[in-house]
Amino acid sequence: TRSLAFQRLGEPMEGSPPSSAGWFRTVFTMRGRALSGIVLPFTVINAVSVAWTCAAQLYLHDNKWDLPSNIESAYALIITTLGFLLVFRLNRAAKRYWDSREKWGKLVELGRLMACSACVHLDREQADAVCALTCLFAVATKQLLRSDSTIDVEQLAGIFTSADYVRKVASAAHPPLRVAAELRRMLADALAVDASTTAALGERRSTILRTLEGYLDGLVGQCGGMERIRSTPLPIVYVSHLRSYLLIALLLMPFVFEQSWLWGTIPTVALVSVAFLGVESAASECESPFQLRPNHLKMEAFCHALFENVSQILVDSLDDARHNPHP
Amino acid sequence: TRSLAFQRLGEPMEGSPPSSAGWFRTVFTMRGRALSGIVLPFTVINAVSVAWTCAAQLYLHDNKWDLPSNIESAYALIITTLGFLLVFRLNRAAKRYWDSREKWGKLVELGRLMACSACVHLDREQADAVCALTCLFAVATKQLLRSDSTIDVEQLAGIFTSADYVRKVASAAHPPLRVAAELRRMLADALAVDASTTAALGERRSTILRTLEGYLDGLVGQCGGMERIRSTPLPIVYVSHLRSYLLIALLLMPFVFEQSWLWGTIPTVALVSVAFLGVESAASECESPFQLRPNHLKMEAFCHALFENVSQILVDSLDDARHNPHP
Amino acid sequence: TRSLAFQRLGEPMEGSPPSSAGWFRTVFTMRGRALSGIVLPFTVINAVSVAWTCAAQLYLHDNKWDLPSNIESAYALIITTLGFLLVFRLNRAAKRYWDSREKWGKLVELGRLMACSACVHLDREQADAVCALTCLFAVATKQLLRSDSTIDVEQLAGIFTSADYVRKVASAAHPPLRVAAELRRMLADALAVDASTTAALGERRSTILRTLEGYLDGLVGQCGGMERIRSTPLPIVYVSHLRSYLLIALLLMPFVFEQSWLWGTIPTVALVSVAFLGVESAASECESPFQLRPNHLKMEAFCHALFENVSQILVDSLDDARHNPHP
Amino acid sequence: TRSLAFQRLGEPMEGSPPSSAGWFRTVFTMRGRALSGIVLPFTVINAVSVAWTCAAQLYLHDNKWDLPSNIESAYALIITTLGFLLVFRLNRAAKRYWDSREKWGKLVELGRLMACSACVHLDREQADAVCALTCLFAVATKQLLRSDSTIDVEQLAGIFTSADYVRKVASAAHPPLRVAAELRRMLADALAVDASTTAALGERRSTILRTLEGYLDGLVGQCGGMERIRSTPLPIVYVSHLRSYLLIALLLMPFVFEQSWLWGTIPTVALVSVAFLGVESAASECESPFQLRPNHLKMEAFCHALFENVSQILVDSLDDARHNPHP
Amino acid sequence: TRSLAFQRLGEPMEGSPPSSAGWFRTVFTMRGRALSGIVLPFTVINAVSVAWTCAAQLYLHDNKWDLPSNIESAYALIITTLGFLLVFRLNRAAKRYWDSREKWGKLVELGRLMACSACVHLDREQADAVCALTCLFAVATKQLLRSDSTIDVEQLAGIFTSADYVRKVASAAHPPLRVAAELRRMLADALAVDASTTAALGERRSTILRTLEGYLDGLVGQCGGMERIRSTPLPIVYVSHLRSYLLIALLLMPFVFEQSWLWGTIPTVALVSVAFLGVESAASECESPFQLRPNHLKMEAFCHALFENVSQILVDSLDDARHNPHP
Repeated sequence: TRSLAFQRLGEPMEGSPPSSAGWFRTVFTMRGRALSGIVLPFTVINAVSVAWTCAAQLYLHDNKWDLPSNIESAYALIITTLGFLLVFRLNRAAKRYWDSREKWGKLVELGRLMACSACVHLDREQADAVCALTCLFAVATKQLLRSDSTIDVEQLAGIFTSADYVRKVASAAHPPLRVAAELRRMLADALAVDASTTAALGERRSTILRTLEGYLDGLVGQCGGMERIRSTPLPIVYVSHLRSYLLIALLLMPFVFEQSWLWGTIPTVALVSVAFLGVESAASECESPFQLRPNHLKMEAFCHALFENVSQILVDSLDDARHNPHP
Repeated sequence: TRSLAFQRLGEPMEGSPPSSAGWFRTVFTMRGRALSGIVLPFTVINAVSVAWTCAAQLYLHDNKWDLPSNIESAYALIITTLGFLLVFRLNRAAKRYWDSREKWGKLVELGRLMACSACVHLDREQADAVCALTCLFAVATKQLLRSDSTIDVEQLAGIFTSADYVRKVASAAHPPLRVAAELRRMLADALAVDASTTAALGERRSTILRTLEGYLDGLVGQCGGMERIRSTPLPIVYVSHLRSYLLIALLLMPFVFEQSWLWGTIPTVALVSVAFLGVESAASECESPFQLRPNHLKMEAFCHALFENVSQILVDSLDDARHNPHP
Repeated sequence: TRSLAFQRLGEPMEGSPPSSAGWFRTVFTMRGRALSGIVLPFTVINAVSVAWTCAAQLYLHDNKWDLPSNIESAYALIITTLGFLLVFRLNRAAKRYWDSREKWGKLVELGRLMACSACVHLDREQADAVCALTCLFAVATKQLLRSDSTIDVEQLAGIFTSADYVRKVASAAHPPLRVAAELRRMLADALAVDASTTAALGERRSTILRTLEGYLDGLVGQCGGMERIRSTPLPIVYVSHLRSYLLIALLLMPFVFEQSWLWGTIPTVALVSVAFLGVESAASECESPFQLRPNHLKMEAFCHALFENVSQILVDSLDDARHNPHP
Repeated sequence: TRSLAFQRLGEPMEGSPPSSAGWFRTVFTMRGRALSGIVLPFTVINAVSVAWTCAAQLYLHDNKWDLPSNIESAYALIITTLGFLLVFRLNRAAKRYWDSREKWGKLVELGRLMACSACVHLDREQADAVCALTCLFAVATKQLLRSDSTIDVEQLAGIFTSADYVRKVASAAHPPLRVAAELRRMLADALAVDASTTAALGERRSTILRTLEGYLDGLVGQCGGMERIRSTPLPIVYVSHLRSYLLIALLLMPFVFEQSWLWGTIPTVALVSVAFLGVESAASECESPFQLRPNHLKMEAFCHALFENVSQILVDSLDDARHNPHP
Repeated sequence: TRSLAFQRLGEPMEGSPPSSAGWFRTVFTMRGRALSGIVLPFTVINAVSVAWTCAAQLYLHDNKWDLPSNIESAYALIITTLGFLLVFRLNRAAKRYWDSREKWGKLVELGRLMACSACVHLDREQADAVCALTCLFAVATKQLLRSDSTIDVEQLAGIFTSADYVRKVASAAHPPLRVAAELRRMLADALAVDASTTAALGERRSTILRTLEGYLDGLVGQCGGMERIRSTPLPIVYVSHLRSYLLIALLLMPFVFEQSWLWGTIPTVALVSVAFLGVESAASECESPFQLRPNHLKMEAFCHALFENVSQILVDSLDDARHNPHP
């Protein structure tokens, strides 16, 4: 049922092939293209283009505006810089996308280390609780990044028997921080020392506590890093300048080129505007990849993978404890 | 009232949409465009352009200067490199912007870790004091980066009851360093060992001290990193060469192209100069994003977020201490 | 036999010269060119180009479609941006390739450190077991990244005498994690402390445990990082937009240029499409370099190098223990 | 007097506005432009340009060399790549500049942490000595990077009363390493343990020693990193190829374009060569920013800032020790 | 004699000016230009160019092949992307070069820290042995990266009196790893604890052992990182595609442009092919900078610098031990 819950939740992200699929599968996919973002500017630009081309070709044939010769050279002056700006923006978006992916990856990795260390160094019961809270941390991070108001308890089926605790966490102002505080307190309790502890055991417990708290600090850090990416778009000045620049360049295209391209103006403007707006849209789409969209991070799958890993670690550790562990 | 204080202080940064807003909202915003920086060069360039075009079209019609053919090709030679330079500069500014954002993000993150660890490992009273100083550290960093002479005490309402201590910190040469020294001494006192401490407890305290001092070193490091960005503009040779290059290229445009563009020279020069100056201005705007401007870091919001997190941690920790903490 | 096993397994990767070989050897190699990926789009584009050119040159001579003058300038507008996009994609792929290489390199490095430290700080027998599991970890990582269902036991000849344990690991859901858990438990057992351990020895054992667990965490981290690269292709929107853009640009080329290039259209379109598709294909090829292909990581060789290093370390350590170790 | 010494020493760097100053201040500055590096190639190129243009316009009017048509297209082929190369070089120089700045910044930061920790964890007298040596380390690093033969003792006025020790350090082969060794020995002495130390105190001292030595290792690392930048120019093959390429391109310009640009050749070549040589010169200027030049690192100011911070820390710590430190 | 040995060994790298030298010294140098790599393709391309131009100008004057008009525009389409690819490759090579440099720099730095720490925390005799092995590690790394079969013992004159040990190390499969294992065992012996060690001394020794082993791990890591760069060229698909692309573009140049450039084709093709091949060659040259070539890392000088630093540290430490060390 846990698998099913993740599958159901992650469904809106399915339906587009992976980008490593073959040429024509990636070319002919529609779902992952993020076209919704460019419908409006595309319509405006092409409406102007069609209107002007028809007007010029049909009615203004004789007394049309006398375009200065060589005005296209002004176009050439600005189009290279526009291309740079578009790819610059795409590059920043790609970096943000990969940073986000890397942070989720490290979150899963630290979750694994936490589970594995807890199984080796803590009691069975304590290890179970640490593993459960680690899983909850991942789900709470997902909730926070998606701005969901609750956590679907079914995702944690078999991990938390009571849904009350999960609901309590989900309603906190910052759920992952709530889980982290809980986990930190639990670690401190599990590895407490007092005046009667011997030096060697005390040292060992402190070393393990430091290690496990280090993993926990890492988990909190990955979560904070993703919050940062989600809450910080590019400075408005970059985006508004680039979009104005792009819009003006595309809007002026029919006026500048209609006299040489004639009826060819309409398809040419359409193709060029799709090409350029599409780059902008791809950048925009991947800048903050935490929604339920085909290009965004498959956070359900990441949580599921973590849970599978943690389960394997718990089962193996029971197994090892029962048999002679060393090969 | 703390929320209100932050809201009031951060007000000059509001009023422009986030860059992840829809196409036309970002295109039609005026507030975040950083146009003030380009008013002067734009005016100079376009005054020259208008003056020369009018003179050439109206008076010099017959005996005007005979422009060598093909002089525009010289333009093509330099314009691509100019585009590269502009995007190179924009790229460096974007990197500085994101580094600054990341440093503030890490500051908030370390503040959370400090608060959370203090609540688990220190006495209630000590934890309160550590949390208060951590919050003050963030506000003092904001003061330093803004070059403010004082700290608005209302921001710390409910955290520091006496405004005197805050004022004393605010008047130090380097306020965050003052707070950090205080915090370091407090940690050392809270976790002191003496000849009668047992080995296990001594080890534990030293481990915790090392961890908490590590967070503190991180806080100081983030603050230092942001000071560095603020106080180190790009080398003057980059900026002055790029701007001279850009200015000369734009100033010569009407003289080179007036014979082919005729009256079209005036709007074309205006559009091209806005496009290019706008990129330079966007870079300039985001290079040192610590002022009260729409594109700059919303430091009030970051401090506020940290305070909310710290409050949650303190309240949860009281809560946990009262009930059975483990789920 | 171990060498032979690795050589046999890695055979499909051989046959192309290293890229540091001389000019003409690298130009005339065919095996490493990743041409299979572009056969389909190349065929489609050139079929259209040949068909149209023949039709236009042979049959439509008189009443052919009257192409608007200067339509090629639209081409110039988009081709620079297309070039940027291609190199942007190549750059991201190169970064992924190098990151993967670096992670394998660090895995080998950490394996060496683990072996070396174990030989110095653990008993002979324990050190042997740690070294064996470290080698198995590398092979299990290779298995996971290749999505192989089993591990060829011959690779571990002389390291694990019984193939059963290897088979058990290979059938786990996540084999490297299984090995890591085993290794962590073994380290904890080898360096256990109890109430009767003296403070100095306890401290020493905890320090060594921390160090060795640190290496192990690093090994798990490298493995996780490579899984991340393997399982995360570029966002589909990037690839599908770039490929559509490229396909349309190349498909339209014969229609736009046939009137000026005449029969030269066929070879020109062929050359230009190979040039551009080849860049895309090179990027595609190196994005996730974990298969048995000539451009991919030579993981067999890396495992072999690690095993050789570990053997040397074990032999030297026996040697040192027998003689007076210090020069 | 310390302030005065730093001001006097750093004087050659003053006189150019910061690059964040207004448009026209940065455009009209002359001091920071690094023009001296391009005087020679500029003169050679423009001498050739003037000579050829005059010869061609005045004497060779009739029987001049018949230039093949369309030779300018060869120019277009190479000029874009030249632009890339120039910006590539500028980019590498900018990275080196910022790395250097970051290393000095971290040096200052580590110096602060060292001073602050020493004041909290060491005796008053020992803390004073550690702070003094930290300041000396910064000045010795400056001396090394500038290749100065001595240290101006006035910079350390109020820190070291006897100039003899400073002179001894300054005459070492590697002064910062000399100071670091001294500091390391002092820390080891201040935090020594012996057979009679209790476990808890011994652990505490070792922890503090590790922390302080960690800061010291960091200081040595920053110094080494800057030495590395200073002593490693770009590979000669990059620079000599780029400069030859640039020189030939600019030298051929009058011969290729004189027939179309006529007398306009002279100013055009002058402007284009300033634009391109200026980029190369800006890169060259910032590659190793450790001299007394306007674009270089203001190391005097950095040392001064560190000294001010250290003074504040020492004074505050006295203050804290006297009053009730906690707010 | 040690200086002389290093000078003699590093001699093949001398003879070209540093790239920070003046304009004309860098332009007119021949030694560092890495021209040998491009002799073959340059010859082939220009032989074709000369042959075709002569044939076309002298014999085919009348009935020459009728070139389609505007075929040069196909050239413009691909040349920008070619330029991007060349600079992309140069960029990757520059990054590899600088990474290698940084790793050697860190190796020297860690060697210094090792020597300095050993002098402070170990006995005189042990410190001497640690310093000697650290120096040997650097030389063994150089041997490995150069694929030398032996170590020239003279480089270690005054460090190792017996050449036998050096020869034994040099003949190991992986010499630096051999030295590192030796060093690790020596550190473990020097800082051993047993049941009778007091807690405080045990803790101190473990802390120091951890620090020194950390430096050693760093040394091994730098060595491994450089091995990685040396053994991993760019994927063959990148290089073979770029070179084929470049070769075809340059080979077709005379056929495409001969009709407009006439006899000017020969020098133009020569210049353009030098410009482009030179960029490729510069990238190729610096990709794996571990040979005895003018652009490569001056590893002899780095080893020499390390030895001088270590000597200074040893001498100063004797000196300090004799006098009152504190200023």
